[in-house]
Amino acid sequence: MSEKATFVLTITCPDTVGIVAAVSGFLTQHDCFITEASQYGDPLSLRFFARMVFSEGALTPPPAELKMLFSLVADRFQMIWNLYDMAIKPRVVVLVSKFGHCLVDLLHRYHTGQLGIEIPAVISNHPDMRSIVEWHGIPYHFFAVDRHDRAGQEERVAEMIERLDVDLVVLARYMQILPARMCAKLAGRAINIHHSFLPSFKGAKPYHQAHARGVKIIGASAHYVTADLDEGPIIEQGVERVDHKATPEDLVAIGRDIENVVLSRAVRWHIERRVLLNGGKTVVFK
Amino acid sequence: MSEKATFVLTITCPDTVGIVAAVSGFLTQHDCFITEASQYGDPLSLRFFARMVFSEGALTPPPAELKMLFSLVADRFQMIWNLYDMAIKPRVVVLVSKFGHCLVDLLHRYHTGQLGIEIPAVISNHPDMRSIVEWHGIPYHFFAVDRHDRAGQEERVAEMIERLDVDLVVLARYMQILPARMCAKLAGRAINIHHSFLPSFKGAKPYHQAHARGVKIIGASAHYVTADLDEGPIIEQGVERVDHKATPEDLVAIGRDIENVVLSRAVRWHIERRVLLNGGKTVVFK
Amino acid sequence: MSEKATFVLTITCPDTVGIVAAVSGFLTQHDCFITEASQYGDPLSLRFFARMVFSEGALTPPPAELKMLFSLVADRFQMIWNLYDMAIKPRVVVLVSKFGHCLVDLLHRYHTGQLGIEIPAVISNHPDMRSIVEWHGIPYHFFAVDRHDRAGQEERVAEMIERLDVDLVVLARYMQILPARMCAKLAGRAINIHHSFLPSFKGAKPYHQAHARGVKIIGASAHYVTADLDEGPIIEQGVERVDHKATPEDLVAIGRDIENVVLSRAVRWHIERRVLLNGGKTVVFK
Amino acid sequence: MSEKATFVLTITCPDTVGIVAAVSGFLTQHDCFITEASQYGDPLSLRFFARMVFSEGALTPPPAELKMLFSLVADRFQMIWNLYDMAIKPRVVVLVSKFGHCLVDLLHRYHTGQLGIEIPAVISNHPDMRSIVEWHGIPYHFFAVDRHDRAGQEERVAEMIERLDVDLVVLARYMQILPARMCAKLAGRAINIHHSFLPSFKGAKPYHQAHARGVKIIGASAHYVTADLDEGPIIEQGVERVDHKATPEDLVAIGRDIENVVLSRAVRWHIERRVLLNGGKTVVFK
Repeated sequence: MSEKATFVLTITCPDTVGIVAAVSGFLTQHDCFITEASQYGDPLSLRFFARMVFSEGALTPPPAELKMLFSLVADRFQMIWNLYDMAIKPRVVVLVSKFGHCLVDLLHRYHTGQLGIEIPAVISNHPDMRSIVEWHGIPYHFFAVDRHDRAGQEERVAEMIERLDVDLVVLARYMQILPARMCAKLAGRAINIHHSFLPSFKGAKPYHQAHARGVKIIGASAHYVTADLDEGPIIEQGVERVDHKATPEDLVAIGRDIENVVLSRAVRWHIERRVLLNGGKTVVFK
Repeated sequence: MSEKATFVLTITCPDTVGIVAAVSGFLTQHDCFITEASQYGDPLSLRFFARMVFSEGALTPPPAELKMLFSLVADRFQMIWNLYDMAIKPRVVVLVSKFGHCLVDLLHRYHTGQLGIEIPAVISNHPDMRSIVEWHGIPYHFFAVDRHDRAGQEERVAEMIERLDVDLVVLARYMQILPARMCAKLAGRAINIHHSFLPSFKGAKPYHQAHARGVKIIGASAHYVTADLDEGPIIEQGVERVDHKATPEDLVAIGRDIENVVLSRAVRWHIERRVLLNGGKTVVFK
Repeated sequence: MSEKATFVLTITCPDTVGIVAAVSGFLTQHDCFITEASQYGDPLSLRFFARMVFSEGALTPPPAELKMLFSLVADRFQMIWNLYDMAIKPRVVVLVSKFGHCLVDLLHRYHTGQLGIEIPAVISNHPDMRSIVEWHGIPYHFFAVDRHDRAGQEERVAEMIERLDVDLVVLARYMQILPARMCAKLAGRAINIHHSFLPSFKGAKPYHQAHARGVKIIGASAHYVTADLDEGPIIEQGVERVDHKATPEDLVAIGRDIENVVLSRAVRWHIERRVLLNGGKTVVFK
Repeated sequence: MSEKATFVLTITCPDTVGIVAAVSGFLTQHDCFITEASQYGDPLSLRFFARMVFSEGALTPPPAELKMLFSLVADRFQMIWNLYDMAIKPRVVVLVSKFGHCLVDLLHRYHTGQLGIEIPAVISNHPDMRSIVEWHGIPYHFFAVDRHDRAGQEERVAEMIERLDVDLVVLARYMQILPARMCAKLAGRAINIHHSFLPSFKGAKPYHQAHARGVKIIGASAHYVTADLDEGPIIEQGVERVDHKATPEDLVAIGRDIENVVLSRAVRWHIERRVLLNGGKTVVFK
C-alpha cells in the first residue's frame, strides 16, 4: 500500500470575508485531510496569507485536476497561489567562496536526510571546497573570478544556475554580489546569509563593525536576495551575547555558529513552503 | 458609530476531515470576519485544537443566538468549545505572600491597560502588600495562616475566591499549597509561577537547588495548578544564563525578572484565550 | 562587632608589566582581602582595566590614608582610578516622561533594597508619574516644556540635577534630548535606555522602524549619554524574538520588558562600579 | 624572530590574603607579561580559583625552571596547579556511535583550525562514521559491542585510549556507558554531551521525555563524566524554544544544533584551560 501523498498549498490575496471557508470547503469537498493550517491577515497591507498542508483521500482527484479545480476558487479571491507535492524534493544549488562552515553544515543535514532536498551542484569562485563537496557525491563547479572580466564569471555562474533548473539558490557565504538581472530572475528563490544582525552593519566586515561599535550582542540574518545589498526580506535572525573581551576574530568565530543555524532554518522553512513574501517583509508560518 | 464586537472561539475535538471547513463556513455564513485563526492536530492524541478570532458583521446574530446556532456544528464534531466576547474583561484575582515582584509587575500592567483585566481583589497570607495594592484602588484581603488551623485559612481564601466570581486565579509567588479540592475546582483557571525550569528543581528553594547542582542556565515556569505540586500543564518558561560567581541570592534576584515576564505572558495568553489543555500539556496559539 | 568595610577600586592605565603585581601587592601589604578581581588588557588600544573588591583588615589604614598611599602606586602607572566605599549609597536621580514602566521597575527594585541606591528625586516634563513616585516617599519635580522656551526647561532640569549632587542620572524613557553642555558635564554618569538594538533604528519610533524592516528579533540598549544621540558607549543590550504577526504596538509592549531588564542591569553594574569606559565602548566586569 | 611563548597557569587553593599578590609578583619578577587573569573565591567552599595567561619576556626562565620556581609559591598556599604551554596542542580522542552531528561539527572546527587540538583517533562501536573521519586523515577504530561480552569491548576501548596518551576524551553522542574504573581514571578529562537541560530528563530518550512533559524550552548539557550517569559537573548548557507543534522527532532535530554548539564550547574551554573543578561544579573563566 502506498502512503498518501502530502501537499502544501500557499495563498496570498486581498483579505476579505470567506477565504478560509472557501479553501477549507474546497479541500473537504475533495476529500483532503488538513494536517496543518496557518493564516495571517496583515492589518496594514490588508493582504491575507495562508499555508495549508493536507494529505489526499480516496476521492481526491490527481494533482493536475485538483489544481485546475482550485484555480476557480483562487480566481474568485485574486489569489497568488502554489500547490506543492511534498514528495518531490526541491533542487537547491549552493554557492560558496572560501568560508566553508555554512556549506559543511548544509551538506551534513543533506547527507543525513534532515533536509529533504536535492543538491545538483555546488558553485564556487574558489577551488577550496571541491574535496568535501565531492566526498558527498555532489558535482563542484569552480568559476574563477577574473578581475578584468568580472561579468564573464557572473555570466558563467548564471548559465550554470539556469541549466541546473533549481528551485532555490543558497548563498552560503558567497562573497560575490549577484548581478541585478540575476537577483530579479531569482526573486524569492535565492537566500543569503549576512553575518550581522540586520539592519545593523550592512556591507563588508560586519563583525569588525560590531566590534568597533562595542555591541553586547551579535547576530546573523538570512534574507531573500534583492538587488539592494542586504536589504532583502528577512527570513530569520539569530543572536549571541558577547563581551568586551571578544576580538573581531572571536566575533567571527562566535558568528559562524549563529550563521549555520540561521541559514539552515531559513532553507528548511523555504523548502517546506513556510515563507511567504509580504512586500519587503516575510510571513513565516513556523 | 460603535466599534464592531470581537469574539474568540476556542475548540477541542477529535481530529477528522472537515472541521475547519464547517467552522469557517459557519462563520462566513453568519457574516463574521475572521481576523486570526490557529489550528493544531495532535498526531499522538488525535485531538484537534483551534482558536478563531472574528468580528461581527451587519448580519451577525447576537451572541446568544450565535452560540445556539454554533452548538449544532459543535455537536456534530463532539467539540468542547467556548465563545468569548472580548469586550468583557476577565476577572482575575491575585494571591501573593511576601515577595511582591510578580504582583507589582501585574499591577503595573493592569494599571496602564496593557492587561485587559479586572482585578476585583488581591488575597494574601501576609499584610505586607496592602499599601501598594490599595494605591491601585484594589481591595486587599489578608487571611493570616494559623499554624494550628491551616485548613481554616484555606477555607476563608476559598470562600473569598468563590464569592468574587473569578475567571482566573493567579498565584504570584503565593507560598501556600492550595487544597486538592480547590485545585480541582479551579482546573485550567489557576496559574502558578514556579521559580525553576520545570521539571528540574520542584518544591522548595529551587534557586538553592540550582546553585547546588551548578547549572549554567536558570529558569521559571508558569503552569496551571493541579493537585500534584509543580506537575501541572506548563504554559510558558523563560531562562537566563548564570555563571559560577552567582550565589543563591544572585540567582533569586536574576530569577525575579524571569518570573515577571513568564507569569505575565501566561496570564495574557490565558485571558486572550490562547491556551488550550491537551492532557497534561498545553497548546498555546501565540 | 562591626562588619568590615568593603571597597571597590577601579583602574584604567596603559598596559605594561607588573600592574597586577603592584596593585595586589599594595593591597596585601595593607591587610586588604581581595574578594573579587577582574582585569582586561585591550590588545587594540593597549589600555589596561581592572576592578578589585576588597574588605579591610585589622591593619588597613582609614580610606583617606589608603587613597593617599595608593596614589603613589597609581602615579607610577599613570592610572585613572577611583576608590569607592560601598557603604555609601550612590545618589541616583531618574528622569522620566510619560511611559512609566522603567521608572516603576526601578522604584520597585529600590523599594525592596535590590538596588543599593538613594533616589533623591524624580524629574519629569510631565505630571503623570507624581503619585506613584510620592507613594515611594521620593520628591517629584515637574518642569513643563514650554515650546517657545525649550532652553528654559532644560536650564531648570540642569539646575536641579546640579543642586541634588547626584552620582548618576538615569533617563528612564525621558523623551527629551539633553543639551550638549549637560551631556559633557555628565559624561560617564548618565545612562539612557534606547528602545532598539543599537546601532539599528536610532532616533524616533524605533519599534515602528523595526516593524517596517520586518526584523525577527527586537531589542533595547542601555548606553552612556553623549551629545551624539544614541551613539554613546553601550553598557548592555537585550533582545526578544518576534514574528510577522506583531504589530508596532505589540513590539512596543514586548519591548517594555526588555527595556526594564536592560536598564536595571546597566544601573546596577554602574553603581557596583563594574563599568569602565574604553573610548566609545565599555568594559563591563560582570 | 620567534614569537613569544604563551602559557596558562591554573590554580586552586584555600582562599586567603595575598594569593594574587604572590602569584602576580612571581610572574612580574620573572619578566612574564600577564595578558589575561581571572580569579574567583567561592564564599561557600572558601576555595580560591585562578587562571592566568602570560607570555614570556627576555628574562623568563625556561618552562621547567619556571615550574620549579613556582612550586615554592604554590606550596606556601597549598595550591593544586598546572602550567600549560599553549604551543603544545592537546590530544583529543572522540568517541561516537551512530549520530554523527557532534563529530562532524568537531571535525570541521578541527579541520579549519578553529580548535587548536590534535585528534589522534576516533573510536566507535559502529562502523558508520569511518569514511568521513578518514577523509579528515584521522584513524578510525571500530570496536563492535558483543552483547554477550560487553566488558570485552569496554576493555578494548580503554586500552586504545590508554595507548593514545590523550589529554581529553570527548563523548560526542557515544551511546555506551563508560565503566566506573575508566570514569575514575579520566576524572576531569572526559566530556559528555547529554541531550537534555540537566538535571531534567536524565537517562534515555530525553527529548521524548521533554515532549511528554510538554516543556516550552529544550536544552543540552556538556559535563565531565563521572560514574554517576548524567550527574557530573556541568560545563555548559544551551537552550532553544519549542512549542506544542514539535514532535519528539522535531525536538531531536532542534536539539542537534544545541548539542553541537554546547559541546564544542565545552571542548574549547577545556583545552584553553578555562574550566576548573569545584566539587561537583565547575568554575568557567570565559
